[in-house]
Amino acid sequence: MSAFFAAHQGLLEAAVQAARTRGYWSAYPETPSGKIYGETAKADGEAAFKALIGQPFPLDQQATTRVGRETSPYGFDLAISYPSAPVASLVAAAEKAGAAWARAGVEDRVGVALEILARLNRESFLIANMVQHTSGQAFMMAFQAGGPHAQDRGLEAVAYAYDEMAKIPGAVTWTKPAGKVNLVLDKQFRIVPRGVALVIGCATFPTWNSYPGLFASLVTGNPVIVKPHPGAILPLAETVRVARAVLAEAGFPADVVQLAADEADAPITKDLVLHPSVKIIDFTGSPAFGAWVRAHAEGKQVYTEEAGVNSIVIDATDDFRGMTGNIAFSLSLYTGQMCTAPQNIFVPRAGIETPDGHKSFEAVAEGIKISVDRLLGDPERAAAVLGAVQSEATLARVDAAAKGRVIRAAERIALPGYDGARAVTPLILAADAADTADYTVECFGPVAYVIATDSTADSLARAAGTAREKGAITASLYATDPAVIDAAADAFAAAGVALSVNLTGQVFVNQSAAFSDYHVSGANPAGNASLTDTAFVASRFRVATVRRQSAA
Amino acid sequence: MSAFFAAHQGLLEAAVQAARTRGYWSAYPETPSGKIYGETAKADGEAAFKALIGQPFPLDQQATTRVGRETSPYGFDLAISYPSAPVASLVAAAEKAGAAWARAGVEDRVGVALEILARLNRESFLIANMVQHTSGQAFMMAFQAGGPHAQDRGLEAVAYAYDEMAKIPGAVTWTKPAGKVNLVLDKQFRIVPRGVALVIGCATFPTWNSYPGLFASLVTGNPVIVKPHPGAILPLAETVRVARAVLAEAGFPADVVQLAADEADAPITKDLVLHPSVKIIDFTGSPAFGAWVRAHAEGKQVYTEEAGVNSIVIDATDDFRGMTGNIAFSLSLYTGQMCTAPQNIFVPRAGIETPDGHKSFEAVAEGIKISVDRLLGDPERAAAVLGAVQSEATLARVDAAAKGRVIRAAERIALPGYDGARAVTPLILAADAADTADYTVECFGPVAYVIATDSTADSLARAAGTAREKGAITASLYATDPAVIDAAADAFAAAGVALSVNLTGQVFVNQSAAFSDYHVSGANPAGNASLTDTAFVASRFRVATVRRQSAA
Repeated sequence: MSAFFAAHQGLLEAAVQAARTRGYWSAYPETPSGKIYGETAKADGEAAFKALIGQPFPLDQQATTRVGRETSPYGFDLAISYPSAPVASLVAAAEKAGAAWARAGVEDRVGVALEILARLNRESFLIANMVQHTSGQAFMMAFQAGGPHAQDRGLEAVAYAYDEMAKIPGAVTWTKPAGKVNLVLDKQFRIVPRGVALVIGCATFPTWNSYPGLFASLVTGNPVIVKPHPGAILPLAETVRVARAVLAEAGFPADVVQLAADEADAPITKDLVLHPSVKIIDFTGSPAFGAWVRAHAEGKQVYTEEAGVNSIVIDATDDFRGMTGNIAFSLSLYTGQMCTAPQNIFVPRAGIETPDGHKSFEAVAEGIKISVDRLLGDPERAAAVLGAVQSEATLARVDAAAKGRVIRAAERIALPGYDGARAVTPLILAADAADTADYTVECFGPVAYVIATDSTADSLARAAGTAREKGAITASLYATDPAVIDAAADAFAAAGVALSVNLTGQVFVNQSAAFSDYHVSGANPAGNASLTDTAFVASRFRVATVRRQSAA
Repeated sequence: MSAFFAAHQGLLEAAVQAARTRGYWSAYPETPSGKIYGETAKADGEAAFKALIGQPFPLDQQATTRVGRETSPYGFDLAISYPSAPVASLVAAAEKAGAAWARAGVEDRVGVALEILARLNRESFLIANMVQHTSGQAFMMAFQAGGPHAQDRGLEAVAYAYDEMAKIPGAVTWTKPAGKVNLVLDKQFRIVPRGVALVIGCATFPTWNSYPGLFASLVTGNPVIVKPHPGAILPLAETVRVARAVLAEAGFPADVVQLAADEADAPITKDLVLHPSVKIIDFTGSPAFGAWVRAHAEGKQVYTEEAGVNSIVIDATDDFRGMTGNIAFSLSLYTGQMCTAPQNIFVPRAGIETPDGHKSFEAVAEGIKISVDRLLGDPERAAAVLGAVQSEATLARVDAAAKGRVIRAAERIALPGYDGARAVTPLILAADAADTADYTVECFGPVAYVIATDSTADSLARAAGTAREKGAITASLYATDPAVIDAAADAFAAAGVALSVNLTGQVFVNQSAAFSDYHVSGANPAGNASLTDTAFVASRFRVATVRRQSAA
């Protein structure tokens, strides 16, 4: 047994168990506390991040040139450069390194993955700074979602993959009764990887969305090329650096994991996708590019998280202020740049019933507006909730959407401590159910529609229909009638959407917890895979058999 | 719990356990014995088969017309007609029936599947006649491979799918510590099917190759359209008839399983593949049509078994006559029409070592020829081993291949008791390693090449290389040096081929046992799926979640 596997075996077993029970479980503490991560961890992480700015990133892999033009959404250039090599050279290095990796035992590979995760966890403050200043997430979210939560998702993938590989017996004796004698074969089953794996990251959650595919492909024996979004290279460069260090310590070629950085005006992703040796692709990004990947990856195993149009359906509530407060937070968190953030809020045009009496459609919309205003009234809290906007294109979408009945206008705001940060508050619009051209299109970013419908049945049909046609990852329902809840559960299950019901407290529809929530169902256009189910790992390896006629 | 599930639960649990241990296990007796199947079962099965000839097949499903032009390879027309309806009508009926099927519980669905298998097993003699007179298999093989072994493969798929679905907890409480209070969500996980499933059967193993996909899609909640090969409709029509009867008895719409028969000059398979509601496709057939299916099924889950070029590598043996006898049987069984049958026999041109001393290349080739002659010398035994040839095209391929150095000529033979049967003995040719244009192309049917190579290393490189490029399902090795065996194990594992070593007795490389042998690795062009691993079942369903904020 490898030392790394031995060191982390207890954690692995707990993770496998958690994946089976899918209640609450987490391996890596989400609290950015000095007591947990070390009293100087916060300052050390920030200092380590600042020391990287303006420098060549210390990643020891083949390079014919260097690339990188990241800017922080908080208003400054990172000016960090990364090694760059031709796609063919990267793939060739992956294949060469992959031969030794394929021969390694399951426990060796899993041990390496668990050690990488452990070291990434210790670096969570550094990673947090890296995620903050590429994605634009506020620090707390960058720490949690970019650090421990991403690590949990990586561990979850390792646990599922390990569990599947452990199910394959290494050797068995097959004894078939055949009259007077037995027919006997000694059989060995060997796990064989698929080939070079490509992980295509996104700019908003560079680690959280990449770790599952990265670690699932890695432990199943495939060498991995990590292709970060050109706007969010740094967190994955650090991830690759750590992975290569652990691989080398364990006696494997560092090129089992490589970074493939590029710049927006000289993209290399398509060349990587099209390379015949690339056999597995994990993609997070836009539906437009996702469609291209799916169309050009025939014969390759492709796992995507693209995007969709998430809905809230309001039928009634027994806590109006809890409801509007919860919705306000969901719309504001990371400025609506989460794939799980709601866009469409369906409300009967006749209004809803609440403990405070009947509320008209307008009153519901106004209630949400007031809650957003209240949440974001304090600049420090607004900065902590909203963070910055990753891309100029998102701001442009907000501007373009601001037409018709504006319930709440988006406002450019300053983020305390950062000059030139790109920050904005949510835009909330009123719409009629008939205005489908506006609201059934995904508008990535802080844009929400409060939509007047004929009835809750109409709301459900529209929300589920949009999910089936355009994709959706989450849905949220407010209702007090069990029959309405059951109808919504049926409608959203059929559309492959995860439904949250009556969230009025400190759990939000945006949140997806590793080891419990299946993130993306794979059953509508928002993505073809789920984090993490067995299907996410089981096709990353194959089994080759050797049968020997027994000497007996 | 459904009555069907309760009746078969013990068998299911044993099957799940067998799938985990993958030693020898079988649910359905392979011996066509009156003691097992009933003293009159053989006669009853034959009579029931004969009563169907020349009649409309009694399948109660929608029909706008009737189709069917099957002929027995044993020399007579079946003249059986089957209901036919437009593709759009079949798919619409599947979707309608699928709604109720999706709502059924896992145990209800699994119970139905197990009852279908139990009834098919009781009909094994009838199915044997149906398989014999469509595929051309000799009766014993038609009974075993078409009956109990196919049923075992179906049960194996049910066991894997059940095991995966059983892993999804139905309901959990998620309790996250959050300081003074806990955050609590009640979560329900619901299994949602993918959509309409299509099973495309082949003419040579209509049941064995179709049952895994049929039963895997069925128990995971998908309605199934069974599209038989136009030359082998009958065994699948009977399978569908039994399935519909069980579904109806269990209170489900019979259209959860439908037959989509056609004729060779008016094929409907492409229309079925292209229908947007078809979400899962199981295909068995030629690489040419398989490539079309894969290219036109974007966004659909496709599982294929296509074909490949299987090799035997001979380095040395400690039982020359056992080896040649085993090879002779593998070449002759069902006239080489098995996807697992060997085509290329690589022998060093300098010959091999045996207990009887050195054998030249020519002596090895001659030894195989003599063993084939001996095996097929008795007409009754020849008929039992060879069976008939399913398709005229196979005979044409044998004729076209008969050029160059013929070691053993193919001979048209009569099959006792059948006038006009299409039967032929194997063609064996000698080739040089340089003649790649001849032997690296799949020649489906009873054609084998004995190929002179520079060395066993050369043999392994060529055999594994052909497997990687053209696909291969099986490989066979004869060697006495453990280093050679290890090298072969590595080479064929890397090429995704199941290797058998030193078979000299009554186990043959052609044979693939349910619950133990992974049939097709999915790791080379011979197919993209394996019977049966977790990957074969895990993507046939998705999970939808409902989270409710706990009242507590």
